[in-house]
This record gives sequence, structure tokens and C-alpha cells, in this order.
Amino acid sequence: MKIINAVLSGGVGSRLWPLSRKSRPKQYLPLFNGKSLFELTIERNRSFCDELYLIGGIDNYNLSRGILEKSGITQFKEIVEACPRNTAAAIAFAAFQAEPEDILLVTPSDHLINNNEMYQNAVDAAIALAKDGYIVTFGLQPKTPETGFGYIEYDGNEVISFREKPSREMAEVFVSSGNFLWNSGMFCFKAGLYLDELQIHEPELFDASKIVFNKKNGIYLNELLSMNIPSISVDYAVMERTEKIKVIPSFFEWSDMGSFLAIYENILDNDPRKSGSNLSLNTHKLVEFVGVENLILVETEDAILVVNKDNAQDVKKVYERLEKENPSYLK
Amino acid sequence: MKIINAVLSGGVGSRLWPLSRKSRPKQYLPLFNGKSLFELTIERNRSFCDELYLIGGIDNYNLSRGILEKSGITQFKEIVEACPRNTAAAIAFAAFQAEPEDILLVTPSDHLINNNEMYQNAVDAAIALAKDGYIVTFGLQPKTPETGFGYIEYDGNEVISFREKPSREMAEVFVSSGNFLWNSGMFCFKAGLYLDELQIHEPELFDASKIVFNKKNGIYLNELLSMNIPSISVDYAVMERTEKIKVIPSFFEWSDMGSFLAIYENILDNDPRKSGSNLSLNTHKLVEFVGVENLILVETEDAILVVNKDNAQDVKKVYERLEKENPSYLK
Repeated sequence: MKIINAVLSGGVGSRLWPLSRKSRPKQYLPLFNGKSLFELTIERNRSFCDELYLIGGIDNYNLSRGILEKSGITQFKEIVEACPRNTAAAIAFAAFQAEPEDILLVTPSDHLINNNEMYQNAVDAAIALAKDGYIVTFGLQPKTPETGFGYIEYDGNEVISFREKPSREMAEVFVSSGNFLWNSGMFCFKAGLYLDELQIHEPELFDASKIVFNKKNGIYLNELLSMNIPSISVDYAVMERTEKIKVIPSFFEWSDMGSFLAIYENILDNDPRKSGSNLSLNTHKLVEFVGVENLILVETEDAILVVNKDNAQDVKKVYERLEKENPSYLK
Repeated sequence: MKIINAVLSGGVGSRLWPLSRKSRPKQYLPLFNGKSLFELTIERNRSFCDELYLIGGIDNYNLSRGILEKSGITQFKEIVEACPRNTAAAIAFAAFQAEPEDILLVTPSDHLINNNEMYQNAVDAAIALAKDGYIVTFGLQPKTPETGFGYIEYDGNEVISFREKPSREMAEVFVSSGNFLWNSGMFCFKAGLYLDELQIHEPELFDASKIVFNKKNGIYLNELLSMNIPSISVDYAVMERTEKIKVIPSFFEWSDMGSFLAIYENILDNDPRKSGSNLSLNTHKLVEFVGVENLILVETEDAILVVNKDNAQDVKKVYERLEKENPSYLK
């Protein structure tokens, strides 16, 4: 039995445009003292795990390799997806790669986590429950009535219910009640158990994923076959349905770095990039803000974004518009 | 007797930083279909005038020359000031250069004026009054209760009083009364009459200016001697004191282009540089504004300014701060 860190590295992070691009997704941007979220993820989980699996897309895997090379990590296994098929399938590939008794610590590669004792305690507790035959999800102590996350109603390690992204009012009720956690996107379970549960609840997805995995060419999955896999999240496919679910209420500092607001909140007030309530990112120029507040300015070689931090989610709309009108700015 | 356009070209235009720099003052920026305010000023007044005088600083005169060369204008006289001594002295230099009976049409080089029949009528009327022996100032029909301008209380061509920059409340009273005009900074008079009036009201300034003019080295004024000239505006030195003052109430379209707000207001709504209520200037990059309104973004090689158009005056404070802290950004 081994403990394996299965790192999922898909997606672009469209809400971090123009920093994040198809050729340079969010998790590879060196925003944190020169390190990327991908690099920090790998570093954070090395001490808990015997092996490292990378599950990512054909556009990304060379970026992952480059960072591992820089970090001197040579022992890892790759699964290169031909096209994005969501998390249920991505985790299935990791599970097929492992032995059934191996424990997978599944982590996104684009979260910022303060790697302290609270994190280590949470992971230790999750591994212990996984060894006992449970599907474990990490639930995070909610800090604000965030409407962009799913919530988990809990009691100790028991999951009472999963709740999809709530309204503002409902989120406020959730947070003030003290009975709800944010759904983190981190999981821990035996590889075989995950596949058993997937087969029970999403047999079509299980079968299609198994065919794709078995017919892979080295590390590369086949594109045409991959198109047969239903694109479903692991939450919907397994977490919300399995009887074997447990949750680890977690208290570590965490951010999904989903938008420039999250980046703003994770940059210290005395950082030279901050000027009053305004922030400038990725520029070597002198930036002066006059008569404005709560703005984030981002400069790249071909684009400048000025966004109010309270509208940081709307950057996704710019990305989607450019995808239709001017895709060269997304490359 | 000749009619001479005396063009004053001093100052940087600090409220247009980072576009305007010591090496590239506001009046030389090619903001209007590739033309600068300086160039438009010269073009506008050519048809009225027999000669052209340029009075400007040592930092500017090569920029003026370059534009005249481009326009194919070879006949002009230059007076190069060693240091800024304000408008009363600058106009005195032009007057010393001319014959006493010559008429000076004194124009700043950094105003935007719609050169239509109303402008031509105003200039014709001013020249006629100047020929009759008056000191003529152009008063502009006020459009808004602007607090940054001086006002002229008038009745026909008679000046009742000059008023310094008023409070907001007072400006509103001025504008609604219909008896007030904006003080434009454009003047018309015989050279000899100006010098006579200057000698009466500011004899020290007159004497010091005369010494500097007489001791000039070719077109260049002496710096040490120039330091003896009191730095006083022509309004204070002559206009507000002379008995011979007349005003031409003027109705042409005019802007002093004093701030990015004025530039904003003189750029059409369908200009590609405008996006909703936001404006980007001098950038070749794709600029996206998200969740913000009334912003002006200016990019140069070494700086980016983001200013709310209602705070456009405060850009001057940035300039003044940089002058102390980081003058390389003003060069």
C-alpha cells in the first residue's frame, strides 16, 4: 500500500486573464515569491506521500514537467488527457494507474494553502479514514458567505448533505449556523474503493474511462475515445451519492485563487504592488492611481486589465467574449 | 504696421503626466489626428497675421522648430527664455522685438479652438480694437461653473471687473447671471502700448525685461539676468490695472486642454479609445475595463496612470510628488 498524491492540473483560470493564458494557465504563474501554485502544491504534499501522479491536459504537461525538473523531482507518473473530461474521469485515471489498496490524496494544483500543523493534521486524519475504507472529502471552515463554492452540512466527520452554490442569503445562513463547510476539491480514498463507487453510481463514465486508460499510448490518452466519457464532476458522480462519505473539518488557511480578488487578499498591505486600496500586478512600470479605489491593474505584453476587486468574477466574461471575438489574446 | 502672432510656449502641462514630460510638454503631444496643440495654434492664426514670433523656454524651442519645419514654415522669429518668468515678461520680449505700432495677437500654444467663423470674427474684432489703441482680452462664453479659470465681468466690450478663480457657489452665480466671461489667456494690442502700460504698472518688471532683451545673445536670453525679472502674470501686471482694457465676448469652441478630463471631453464617444465611460490613451495594448466607470488609463514606456475623470486635476499632485521623489519619471 502506497500513499499517492494525485495532482489534477487542468483548466486555464479564465478569471485571471490576461495573466492566465492557454499557454500559461493560472497554476503555473509564478505569483508567490517566484513560485507557482502548482509548485507549492507539489512541495506541500511531498512529505505525506510515497508517489506523485500528475493528471493534466496535453497543453499543460510540459509546464508541469518543467517545474518538477526545476525542483529536482524525477520520480513521478504522468497521465496526459487529450481533452478535458472533468474531475470524475481525471481521478479515475489516477485510480486505474494505482493498486486498489493504494491511497490517493487528490489535490487540485491551483489552490493556495498555508502548510502548517493544521494542514498536516487534516491530511493525517484523512489518510487514517481512507485506510478505514471511507471516501474522504476536506471541508473548510467558511470565512465569508461565498456564493461561488459548494457547501457541506456536517456533524463531526459525518456528512449530512451537500449543497450546491447557494444564494447570498442562504450562504449567510450556512456560515452563521456553524454547521457548514466549504467543499474544497481535495479528497482522499483507496483507489479501488473510488472505482467501485464510480462503477456503482456512474457506470457509463467508469466503463468509458477504463477503455481510455487501457488503450493509452504510453502516458497519452486517446482523444476520440476520450470524447465518449461523460464530463461530470467528482462531486456529482461520487461524493454526493456514496454511502461511504466522510468529511474532515479543516481549519488551515486556504484560497482557491479563483480571481484577482483572491490574489488581492493574499498580498500583504505593505507589498510595493499595493498602493492604498489599489493593486498593480505583473508590471515593471510606475503605476499611479488617482481618485480611484479598490482597483486591480494587470499588465502583460499585449493587454491591460483594470478591474474593480468586487467585480473580479466578471473577468471570466471578458475571457469568454475574447474567445469569440479575438482569441489571439488568449493564447 | 504688421500683425504678429506671438505664440507663448512655456510649461509642461503637469496634469497630463505621464504623457506630458519635460522633454515633451503637453502642447507638443500629437493627440489630435496626429497634430499637436502647438501645430494647430500656428495653423489657426496664420491667415490673420503677417509674422510669427515664438516665445518659449530653452527646453522647448527645438520642439517648436521641428513642428514648423514639418509644416514648411520658415519665416519666424524666436526668443528663447533661459528660465520661466511668467507671461508678463514673455509678452514684453515679444513687444520689444516688434515695432511699437505692430499689433501682437498673443496666443497660448496649448489651447484647443474650433477655427470657425466665430473665431475669425473674434480675432478681427480684437485687431480692430487694438488698432484703436486698446488692450484687448478675449472673454469666452462660460459653459460650466468652472472654478479653475478667472472670470471677466463685462458689458459689451467694456470690462467691469476681473475676478480670480471663484468658489463653486460664486462660479454658479457668475455663469447664471450672463454677465461673466472666462478669461482666455489670449490678448491683442499694439506692442508699444503694452510696454507703456507695463512700465506704468510694473516698472521693475519692465526694466528687468528690457535689460534681458537688450543683452540677449542672438535668440537666447541670459539666465542670470532673467532671474531678476519678477515672475508675474500678464493678467495681474497689466490687464487688471490698465484703463485701456477692452474685452471681446467670444463664442468659439474652446478648451484649455488642462487635464485628462478636457481630453476626455474632446474625444468622440465612438472613438475606439473609449469603452463605455472609460478611455484609454497612448497604448497599443488591448485594454479591458471591468466593473469600473469614468476612468482614464494612460500608458507610456515607463508609466501607467489610472485616474477618475473627476479627479483629473489631481494628476498635478502626482507630478509634484515625483518631482521630489522620482524625477526620472518626469524627463
